[in-house]
Amino acid sequence: MSVHSLRDTHDDLQSLVEEFFRATFSTDNPIITEAIKRMLAAGGKRLRPRITLLAAEACGGKAAEHLYLAAYMELIHVATLIHDDVVDNARMRRGVNATAVDYGNRVSVLAGDYLFAWIFKNVTANYPHPVPNVLSATLADICDGEVIQLQALGNLDLALETYVEIARKKTAALFAASAQCGAIMGGGREAQIAALREFGECFGIAFQMKDDLLDITEDERSLGKPAGNDLAERKTTIPLIAALACGNGRFRAQVRRFYDGQANDAIPSIVQGIEAEGGLAATRAQIARFVERAERALEPIADGTAKRELVRLTEALQT
Amino acid sequence: MSVHSLRDTHDDLQSLVEEFFRATFSTDNPIITEAIKRMLAAGGKRLRPRITLLAAEACGGKAAEHLYLAAYMELIHVATLIHDDVVDNARMRRGVNATAVDYGNRVSVLAGDYLFAWIFKNVTANYPHPVPNVLSATLADICDGEVIQLQALGNLDLALETYVEIARKKTAALFAASAQCGAIMGGGREAQIAALREFGECFGIAFQMKDDLLDITEDERSLGKPAGNDLAERKTTIPLIAALACGNGRFRAQVRRFYDGQANDAIPSIVQGIEAEGGLAATRAQIARFVERAERALEPIADGTAKRELVRLTEALQT
Repeated sequence: MSVHSLRDTHDDLQSLVEEFFRATFSTDNPIITEAIKRMLAAGGKRLRPRITLLAAEACGGKAAEHLYLAAYMELIHVATLIHDDVVDNARMRRGVNATAVDYGNRVSVLAGDYLFAWIFKNVTANYPHPVPNVLSATLADICDGEVIQLQALGNLDLALETYVEIARKKTAALFAASAQCGAIMGGGREAQIAALREFGECFGIAFQMKDDLLDITEDERSLGKPAGNDLAERKTTIPLIAALACGNGRFRAQVRRFYDGQANDAIPSIVQGIEAEGGLAATRAQIARFVERAERALEPIADGTAKRELVRLTEALQT
Repeated sequence: MSVHSLRDTHDDLQSLVEEFFRATFSTDNPIITEAIKRMLAAGGKRLRPRITLLAAEACGGKAAEHLYLAAYMELIHVATLIHDDVVDNARMRRGVNATAVDYGNRVSVLAGDYLFAWIFKNVTANYPHPVPNVLSATLADICDGEVIQLQALGNLDLALETYVEIARKKTAALFAASAQCGAIMGGGREAQIAALREFGECFGIAFQMKDDLLDITEDERSLGKPAGNDLAERKTTIPLIAALACGNGRFRAQVRRFYDGQANDAIPSIVQGIEAEGGLAATRAQIARFVERAERALEPIADGTAKRELVRLTEALQT
């Protein structure tokens, strides 16, 4: 599979990961397999494996030789999504069918753990140092970022730097690892590996910012989840941080009331406020900043189809 | 630290793991650290690290050189306990509030994931093949065993062989890995490594059977969790399997009603029934069988203090 064919064959990469999983993942345990298959089938843009393959090619490797590595990157993402589904006792109590939710929690934790274990079992058996180490450090970063985000829920004074740190850990770490490991296995030199890791990190931060932006600007149909979902979860996303930074006391008070649970129907009005306070424009400026840093990181990489495709993927974050 | 000092210094090993954790585990994330510290401080017999050190010594290694490896074995156990609290929705674990109850399921999932990731990060950085691979395969086994157990909940026709398979995966796999990795790092030859792995597996199965037995025979104070807790969770443990095997239709019908949720106060009566049907005696016979297999597995190991201590720990499962 060449970069050319990858470029326009989104579906190929999609089915590649699924075929790899079908062909190699074996357990006598249909419950575990089903939980993982369902999450895989739910789709996604497969950006992580795509970046792995492009990084390998950018260093002179052949994408076709690193398909498994690429698939592991997507599967780490899938495992974190499965664990993301675990809900709190508090939320369970409010739920309609506590038993069903409880059963879901049990299976979600075990299926995610099994998938992590299966990935590490394969990676430790088949990849040289430091690939297994990079992947376990990445998982630690993801968890750390998620917990910092949990602690920051409802915090309207969250600094932009802290937001970026959360995004770097919970989202960008896996993009960084995807690029880094692709570069390592593609035979990259130290400088190329470092450049591609830096690229992945900046790409990942911009990707998270774009995700935050879409949560405000897109409708439920295109998101596959309710619009304003981040607000509903009391996350302090970058459009909100930027809007609050403008210092409008009435807007802040409105968000405060909503986050304190006193105005549960305020999401449409807060979304309008974020736009009115310039939160969307400021977010786009931040995305542009990390897109520029990602492209600058690629300077040590020789020009070619792989590099051009990485640039194209990065610039797509600005649309 | 020699085997002699280990033998009677349970507290030393306890504090060793805690000191190692304090000294080496660092995260800016107090929530993660607290969740893990609490589970560690709750105690436990530290059998897994003890077996690692004894296995290293049994192969001619020095226990003092493998303290970290031993601590990782306990920490893998701790990580699975943190996730178990979500999985089983357990209210109490080791006599302290379960992490999930104190912090919410989301934090439990993330703290367990972080601990797994941290362990693998260190093990992949510091231990040669196949140690990281053995540990990830072990984690896959543990999850697999837990899911099979989940599927078997309430199944009064569970075969003894299936019970043993569950115990082998969810419990014995980590004892087997503890012994195997201790033997590998202690410089053991192939035959010694295989012998100690086999020992750990048989020890672990007997250990799980003893745990099942204590759940029926001990009171809440000595268990640190409610007695009859396995019955309350509709687990089919070995004392119950053995009691049901005697073919008393009235007893089976009573258990069936309880497991169907129609007689929620029946635990004391079922406990009496298990004893009356010979379930405890049959369990002790099965423990003796695996204790004998564990001791036989040690035949390739030269006599010495380490081997004698392994035998002593194994025979303690019969008391």
